[in-house]
Amino acid sequence: MNVGNFGEFGVISRISRRLPQGAGVLLGPGDDAAVVAAPDGRVVVSTDLLVEGNHFRRDWSTPYDVGRKAAAQNLADVAAMGARPTSLVVGLSMPADLPVDWVDGLADGLREECALVGASVVGGDLARADLVVIGVTALGDLAGSPPVTRSGARPGQVVAVAGRLGYSAAGLALLGSGRLGAGRQAPESGPLAAAVEGHRRPRPPYAQGPEAARLGATAMMDVSDGLLQDLGHIAGASGVRVVLDPDAFEVAAPVLAAAGELGADPLDWVLGGGEDHALVAVFPSEVRLPPEWRIVGRIETGEGVLVTGRDDGPRGWDHFQ
Amino acid sequence: MNVGNFGEFGVISRISRRLPQGAGVLLGPGDDAAVVAAPDGRVVVSTDLLVEGNHFRRDWSTPYDVGRKAAAQNLADVAAMGARPTSLVVGLSMPADLPVDWVDGLADGLREECALVGASVVGGDLARADLVVIGVTALGDLAGSPPVTRSGARPGQVVAVAGRLGYSAAGLALLGSGRLGAGRQAPESGPLAAAVEGHRRPRPPYAQGPEAARLGATAMMDVSDGLLQDLGHIAGASGVRVVLDPDAFEVAAPVLAAAGELGADPLDWVLGGGEDHALVAVFPSEVRLPPEWRIVGRIETGEGVLVTGRDDGPRGWDHFQ
Repeated sequence: MNVGNFGEFGVISRISRRLPQGAGVLLGPGDDAAVVAAPDGRVVVSTDLLVEGNHFRRDWSTPYDVGRKAAAQNLADVAAMGARPTSLVVGLSMPADLPVDWVDGLADGLREECALVGASVVGGDLARADLVVIGVTALGDLAGSPPVTRSGARPGQVVAVAGRLGYSAAGLALLGSGRLGAGRQAPESGPLAAAVEGHRRPRPPYAQGPEAARLGATAMMDVSDGLLQDLGHIAGASGVRVVLDPDAFEVAAPVLAAAGELGADPLDWVLGGGEDHALVAVFPSEVRLPPEWRIVGRIETGEGVLVTGRDDGPRGWDHFQ
Repeated sequence: MNVGNFGEFGVISRISRRLPQGAGVLLGPGDDAAVVAAPDGRVVVSTDLLVEGNHFRRDWSTPYDVGRKAAAQNLADVAAMGARPTSLVVGLSMPADLPVDWVDGLADGLREECALVGASVVGGDLARADLVVIGVTALGDLAGSPPVTRSGARPGQVVAVAGRLGYSAAGLALLGSGRLGAGRQAPESGPLAAAVEGHRRPRPPYAQGPEAARLGATAMMDVSDGLLQDLGHIAGASGVRVVLDPDAFEVAAPVLAAAGELGADPLDWVLGGGEDHALVAVFPSEVRLPPEWRIVGRIETGEGVLVTGRDDGPRGWDHFQ
């Protein structure tokens, strides 16, 4: 059974049943718009498009994985402001011959990722197109805190990271290498499997976003395009230089294993790989950070991003170049 | 010059300069998320995808028109809840060889439509794809009113419409007919031009959304898929029958002219044509309505939508059937 068999309203009905509405949803799917509580009196909003063949491949990721990832990258943007995500709305274009199971899986993935932070999928829109495009918008609540932007870094502060770095790039390289055995199947367990899994389902450290705000972070981003490139935005917006110590990073076992398998430099993935949606934040130097955070550099006067001992390296991702 | 020449961040910079931020925008484009005032403590949110070749054609609409329309259909969804739109976020996928002027025009159209209601484009996302897909999400503020949903219609009430009906369908039929003269150019003035213009740039009656809420409307929608189909949603959600009086509709001159040109029944477009984003609302029968509203029917016990004197007719739009 494909989407065309069910029709637009049949698919909407099917999806809606898979999406329970949590506290804070005052009016859920089924009307012209949803209504969500915004107790802070301000609302944080971020949107992303995921395009089949560009952001995901249907032969490399299950629909459930795509749903998890689509939700994760938007929820991470909200967390990176120091806010708590409350809700998502999702636009979905797809061909009429897409199996309806694919849509079910996507909805399940969106729901489960939202459940990690107590958010709900409150609405959406379906459209027909030759390829699958998913437009996700996330809302969040600041609970009285000022938003943590990109422009608040000052010389003398420290740079810290929470969450994974390099998993997604390592997993993508493994998937693209054709070296995962018969039929190009990913292994089901072990460090290589963990890297592939990290590509399919990023694990943003959501709770560390509001935590960073409470701890006094003055700048923060989620790592979407690669740590060096994203820190370049903080450097630019703040008018400072970011200096990273490559020895401060703990390279995770899956990243090391993938690098060994492919003969790659794991630090390239740690510093340049996107889509893990780690959080990188800038704190006053006297901060005492919980164990989820690792200090990896400092803020100086100047501009740009410098990695001690490396003249150049990966530069992140531009969708059009 | 095309999008690929500028690169992702070059295009973002170009667009951002075209999008001034109004009152109520606490943090605009350029960070992981925007922050918008939500003074009511609740936020209204609606999202739509527009797909090239399905919702618009680049040879039939200018990018400015597409921007106007993309904003309009989302702002109308917010108004249909009785809310005031505050902001949009926009995801845009496009091929790298898209002229950058096209993106400029789109941004201008989004801005100008938002300006009609005092809203701002506060953020977005760019992605690469073989076709142009625009994902728009609108936010709005209820200013203390309860949201006006689809489920509040009760027997004995009256059905009223504000805004245009039939223009967009008439204009689309003209554009598709090949009967607009040499080179299939639309005429530049006159009623046929007004119908084509109505297809390219719908004119939702935004102010009538909050007005309806103040006047005591108990159900409301914007007419996206056709009046009969959309009223079918109100009938279904409210558990009532909607009875329309076809003689109560005033068919506008552009719709009549297009019908004359093409030998069509103009009431088919009035009752079945979508994308004008008129508002249809249900009021207590004793309501005194301002002149922007026209009473076109009543609510009875029963189910479905009945047009007096018409056994059947156009049924609206399903994207997959």
